[in-house]
Amino acid sequence: MSPKPLALALVHYPVVDRRGDRVTTAVTNLDIHDIARTARTFGVQRFYIVTPVAEQRLLVQKILDHWCSGFGAGYNPDRGDALSLVRCVETVDEALRQWQDEAGEEPAVVLTSARQGSLDMRGCAELNRRSPLLMLFGTGWGMAPDLFERGWAVLEPIAGTGDYNHLPVRAAAAIILDRLTGERV
Amino acid sequence: MSPKPLALALVHYPVVDRRGDRVTTAVTNLDIHDIARTARTFGVQRFYIVTPVAEQRLLVQKILDHWCSGFGAGYNPDRGDALSLVRCVETVDEALRQWQDEAGEEPAVVLTSARQGSLDMRGCAELNRRSPLLMLFGTGWGMAPDLFERGWAVLEPIAGTGDYNHLPVRAAAAIILDRLTGERV
Repeated sequence: MSPKPLALALVHYPVVDRRGDRVTTAVTNLDIHDIARTARTFGVQRFYIVTPVAEQRLLVQKILDHWCSGFGAGYNPDRGDALSLVRCVETVDEALRQWQDEAGEEPAVVLTSARQGSLDMRGCAELNRRSPLLMLFGTGWGMAPDLFERGWAVLEPIAGTGDYNHLPVRAAAAIILDRLTGERV
Repeated sequence: MSPKPLALALVHYPVVDRRGDRVTTAVTNLDIHDIARTARTFGVQRFYIVTPVAEQRLLVQKILDHWCSGFGAGYNPDRGDALSLVRCVETVDEALRQWQDEAGEEPAVVLTSARQGSLDMRGCAELNRRSPLLMLFGTGWGMAPDLFERGWAVLEPIAGTGDYNHLPVRAAAAIILDRLTGERV
C-alpha cells in the first residue's frame, strides 16, 4: 500500500526564544521558498505557514501571489509550482483542520525537534504512514513545550557526526524528507 | 579505516545562468550560514566560498569576522563555531591547492549537479573516501561545463519522488552530507 499523503507546517507561534521565553517569530521569505521547493521535490502535498500575525499572513500571500499568478509565474514557473503547495494559517490546529478536510481522514501529527529527551521519539522508518501525516517544524529555538504535551509523536533529532546541534530548519526539513520519502543512492 | 577528511566548495564562478550563459553569481549571506552549519553538523573540515570578485570576498570576510571574533562571537558562539570552517578563495583551483596543503595529500574532487547525463556519475556510497574529498556545489543554474571536463567524479543528482528538480543548493548539500556521513535513523 502506498503511503498516505504528507503535509508540513512551519510554526512561528508558539515557539521559544534563546532564553526559553514564549514568542512569535517573523516569517522569512527564504524559509517559504526553500522548504516549498524541498517539499515539492519529495512529493509533499501541502505546506502550512503558521502565524497568528495578520500582517505576516498578508505578506506571505503577497509572495505567493507574485510567484503563483503575478510576474514571477512567467519569470520562473518552477517556483510557482513549489509555492502552490503553501497555505497560510493562524494556528497549528487550523492547519490540522484544513489538512484533515483535504486528506479526507484524521492525520497523525509528528513534531520535529533538535532536542533529545521525549519518551516517544521515533525514527523516520517508524513513522506511521497508514494515516495522512502532518509534520511540524519549529522556528526560533524550537516549538513551545505545550505542543509536546498533546500526545503527538516526536521525531528523533538528526544526529550528525559530533555534538554540534544547530542545523538550519531548512536543512533539517530536507534531510527528513529525503530519509522519509526519497530514494537511497 | 575511518574516511579521509572532507571539504566543500560553493562555486560562484564559473557557473551558468538560466540561458546557459557563463556568469559570476553573487555571494549570499544565507548560503554561507546554512551550508556552514550543515557542514559543521556532519563533520566537514573546511568550506570554501569561491568567487573571483574581490569586493565579494571582502564582504564574506566581514561576515566571518563578525561571527568568529566580533559582536556575533559572544552573541551566538555556535554560529562562529560553524563559520570558522569557511575560507574565501578566488578560484576552484585555489580551493583545491589550499585543501591539498591542509589535508596533506591530493584530494579527490567530486562535482554535484542537478542534471542527469554524465557517464561517470556515482552514488554517495560509491565515493572514494580513501583520499581527502573536495565536493563542489554550483550556484545559479549550475557549474559551467568546463568543470565537468576535467575528469573529476560527478555525484548522481538527488532524485525526489517525481520529476521536480529544483532543490535549493542548501537543501542538496544537507541531503548529500546526511547520506554521506550521517547516521541513519
